[in-house]
Amino acid sequence: MKRNFAVLGGDQRQLRLAELLCRDGHHISLWGLDRSDLPQSSLEAAAGAECVILPLPVTKDGSTLYLPLGSGVLLLEDLWPLLEPGRQVVCGGMLSDAVRAGARKYRLRLEDYFSREEVQIANAVPTAEGAVAEAMARTRCTLHGCRCLVIGYGRIGKILAQHLQALGAAVTVSARRRSDLAWAEAFGCTPVRTGGLRGQLREMQVVFNTVPARILDRESLEELPEDAVVIDLASEPGGVDLAAAEALGLQAVWARGLPGKVAPDTAAQVLRGAIYHILEERGDPI
Amino acid sequence: MKRNFAVLGGDQRQLRLAELLCRDGHHISLWGLDRSDLPQSSLEAAAGAECVILPLPVTKDGSTLYLPLGSGVLLLEDLWPLLEPGRQVVCGGMLSDAVRAGARKYRLRLEDYFSREEVQIANAVPTAEGAVAEAMARTRCTLHGCRCLVIGYGRIGKILAQHLQALGAAVTVSARRRSDLAWAEAFGCTPVRTGGLRGQLREMQVVFNTVPARILDRESLEELPEDAVVIDLASEPGGVDLAAAEALGLQAVWARGLPGKVAPDTAAQVLRGAIYHILEERGDPI
Amino acid sequence: MKRNFAVLGGDQRQLRLAELLCRDGHHISLWGLDRSDLPQSSLEAAAGAECVILPLPVTKDGSTLYLPLGSGVLLLEDLWPLLEPGRQVVCGGMLSDAVRAGARKYRLRLEDYFSREEVQIANAVPTAEGAVAEAMARTRCTLHGCRCLVIGYGRIGKILAQHLQALGAAVTVSARRRSDLAWAEAFGCTPVRTGGLRGQLREMQVVFNTVPARILDRESLEELPEDAVVIDLASEPGGVDLAAAEALGLQAVWARGLPGKVAPDTAAQVLRGAIYHILEERGDPI
Amino acid sequence: MKRNFAVLGGDQRQLRLAELLCRDGHHISLWGLDRSDLPQSSLEAAAGAECVILPLPVTKDGSTLYLPLGSGVLLLEDLWPLLEPGRQVVCGGMLSDAVRAGARKYRLRLEDYFSREEVQIANAVPTAEGAVAEAMARTRCTLHGCRCLVIGYGRIGKILAQHLQALGAAVTVSARRRSDLAWAEAFGCTPVRTGGLRGQLREMQVVFNTVPARILDRESLEELPEDAVVIDLASEPGGVDLAAAEALGLQAVWARGLPGKVAPDTAAQVLRGAIYHILEERGDPI
Repeated sequence: MKRNFAVLGGDQRQLRLAELLCRDGHHISLWGLDRSDLPQSSLEAAAGAECVILPLPVTKDGSTLYLPLGSGVLLLEDLWPLLEPGRQVVCGGMLSDAVRAGARKYRLRLEDYFSREEVQIANAVPTAEGAVAEAMARTRCTLHGCRCLVIGYGRIGKILAQHLQALGAAVTVSARRRSDLAWAEAFGCTPVRTGGLRGQLREMQVVFNTVPARILDRESLEELPEDAVVIDLASEPGGVDLAAAEALGLQAVWARGLPGKVAPDTAAQVLRGAIYHILEERGDPI
Repeated sequence: MKRNFAVLGGDQRQLRLAELLCRDGHHISLWGLDRSDLPQSSLEAAAGAECVILPLPVTKDGSTLYLPLGSGVLLLEDLWPLLEPGRQVVCGGMLSDAVRAGARKYRLRLEDYFSREEVQIANAVPTAEGAVAEAMARTRCTLHGCRCLVIGYGRIGKILAQHLQALGAAVTVSARRRSDLAWAEAFGCTPVRTGGLRGQLREMQVVFNTVPARILDRESLEELPEDAVVIDLASEPGGVDLAAAEALGLQAVWARGLPGKVAPDTAAQVLRGAIYHILEERGDPI
Repeated sequence: MKRNFAVLGGDQRQLRLAELLCRDGHHISLWGLDRSDLPQSSLEAAAGAECVILPLPVTKDGSTLYLPLGSGVLLLEDLWPLLEPGRQVVCGGMLSDAVRAGARKYRLRLEDYFSREEVQIANAVPTAEGAVAEAMARTRCTLHGCRCLVIGYGRIGKILAQHLQALGAAVTVSARRRSDLAWAEAFGCTPVRTGGLRGQLREMQVVFNTVPARILDRESLEELPEDAVVIDLASEPGGVDLAAAEALGLQAVWARGLPGKVAPDTAAQVLRGAIYHILEERGDPI
Repeated sequence: MKRNFAVLGGDQRQLRLAELLCRDGHHISLWGLDRSDLPQSSLEAAAGAECVILPLPVTKDGSTLYLPLGSGVLLLEDLWPLLEPGRQVVCGGMLSDAVRAGARKYRLRLEDYFSREEVQIANAVPTAEGAVAEAMARTRCTLHGCRCLVIGYGRIGKILAQHLQALGAAVTVSARRRSDLAWAEAFGCTPVRTGGLRGQLREMQVVFNTVPARILDRESLEELPEDAVVIDLASEPGGVDLAAAEALGLQAVWARGLPGKVAPDTAAQVLRGAIYHILEERGDPI
């Protein structure tokens, strides 16, 4: 079924998302995405669409819509009254409690297209590729034959470990839960309990961290060989003591937001899928 | 730390498990496993070990110990009084509520080494290999280039799908949850919702079911090509209408208990790991 | 372009080949393949087809056509005069010098569809799968985590090593040429020179030989662990001293002709491809 | 056996090679590699080593030694008289006929450590990784799920295709020889004859060329989608009409000398292996 979508603000991903929806035959209203070939609407016209797509994240400062590609400023407080609770589906990414609360005052129920499990899984693929590219760019050796450690075996850890293995690396996975270690072994990695990392780091050439807890502290980093590369993929607060890493002369980087950076088209496809799923679950399948 | 283990009853796996424990330097008492080079003990001596390992399953008939390699009969009711609650660790596999209740009367708390998550994951590997071997034996084509469907994307589904892909098959995965489908896609399979299987079966050459619910009913089976092979890996009640499959002339098989059949040595290693984990969690690490 | 094919004699593969050609819309004459739903022709009618397909092998005894599914006997000397040099394409499999010489007396130039490089490569896939299935059936452990040795890194060795690796085995490849060892390493295997095998065998759980020379003699076999499995995939004279293996109590098997046995449908598809290639090279593309 | 090596000139790889030889316990004389922690020798002292290693390439201008990390200039004509035919092993990389002829006047027989088959194979791994990294950096999508074309199925094509597949790309391989296409298919790629590329390009998102012949001319490039990425890995004269690609607005790059750029440590290890092989073949094994 063809629908009316409005895409309000956001970065390249939102722009690309608008193009994908357009290609699928939907009618699109754009606002706050100036550098596009698609026609722009007035905010009021856009706000009347069946499905309103807010950016990822909806806001960076807590009060205005995230508008990196637009020229204006829009307070969320000014946006909410334009939307129609009940009639519309309103989605946004990374909705904070404060944003949800603000919208609720206007009886708006927002859907978060980014927090969905299938989006998180799908985004682990570009994150893993971005991590592989970082490692390739920073090492002086090939990943083939390289001893890599992946800390954490959740979504990103699982896919990253598989990619590294596929490229011929010798992959060790550290995790706390026995079941994760059993998975790692079933997929051909060498398992090691996170608590038992000390003493295992001496041999590692590349270390990828996916756990948002200070696992690679100074003491651990000191154990790494001097030409080791450390890539932190964890969300806040990160898992690597970057200051200590720098002081030790290690190459360390906190790589964040990789999907939008390394594969904005893929990221947009993932978001499109999530929006279709939301509509389907609301009983309005595409 | 070296320990005293008793292995009471069970099949080849228990025998092999006893050998592995022995190789690790532990003292082993065997009872009810007649065809072994290891020395046999009296039941009373064995029952005094620090860790008593009952078979997998503990009982098949609900009242006597599973003794396929032994000559005698031992009522569970006669076994429990020989054991010492508190002092010993007593483990068994696939403990039913009735067995647990029986033991509890003697204040015995039994540990199930088989229901552990890491055992279930590790056993998915031999199950997947057994399924691959079944498919190889039954098809007239190679798995390379073969269109395979894996129904369900739990432990077995995930590992099986990866093995099939690695051998060059074109793998479709069906699952109900969007997150499972996202995983399947991330690992390179074609995802399809279980509800949408109808109409997709026509092309499949091999179908593996891992879901214990009647998914492949007569109507679905009729859609398969006449030389399709169906391999059911689900636990009770199975997921394939085998009678209908036979009536339709399809090759269908319910392959059960594969780890113990196709890789008893690997299965025994998995059990040894579980027993060490139990001891570690009880504060008595090996 | 639709054509007239005759399929004369042969086993299941020839029968299946005839069905595949039929499905592609060609006109087929069958002779000497009694158990088929396709209509049979007289030998004379069949012998008049544009393309005559003789079996694989053409003959087992050197003088009569290989007719395992037919009831009669046909001397090659009686067949040749029925064929028409120049007008027809006549193909057969595994043509010996004697067969070629016999045909040449009648000015027939036979094409060997089996000796073609692309057929040998394509057949390495079912051979590798058959070898994997043999190993799975004979070992008491999973291939996952199993230490496997592949001797020789030609067509079969390359594909087999990749399959084993994909299933999670630890694969060592032995070869004589440095370039083969470099390939093995590039594909993630541990390389070892064939001359340096002694001393490396002690750890191996499954050994696959692909080299038709006595590499696994008694001395080498003695070095293997007692529960090792040895699978010889080499053509005559084989590479394993089977008598010595038996005397040592090792499980050893000479697995031959695997493509036709484990995947006759795939094998027939490969032959069809080869026949189309022959016609194309003769300037008569399908 | 410990030996005396001299490393004369060259880039980071030679420097790293010297370090690796040093780590193996050999005595090293360095000349023309100023930025090193290893001690420098006089040219005369270095020229007396048992094995003299000249750079890769030996010369870029045809007359002087390649000295990118050294401060001086050394005419080959001045180098040759310092070396001792017969007593020494003298190796260099990419030896031209002119260089060989020049050395022969002084009765020197030079060994080329770079032209060796095992070096070319081993170098295909960093080349493939470099190509993957280039593709990741230039596309707006993930390689996972990306339609990639690999033109040519030699050393680089084989390894690159496998890496891409392992990362989840849909890989088409084009080659001229049927046997190469059969290999590509056996390894799970979609084969297409190079002559039949026209009409297949429309769908490709990334094209890798490995064939040093003008295959991607303007007409072919016009067929590609406008956001396609083209990566030429071929040696001189390259296989892509880069001017036409630029005119068409395609992203195209001629990526050369990748091993030394993306993985100098791995490249140095490969050279060390080659030098040991040369010594072994000369009867002086390490």
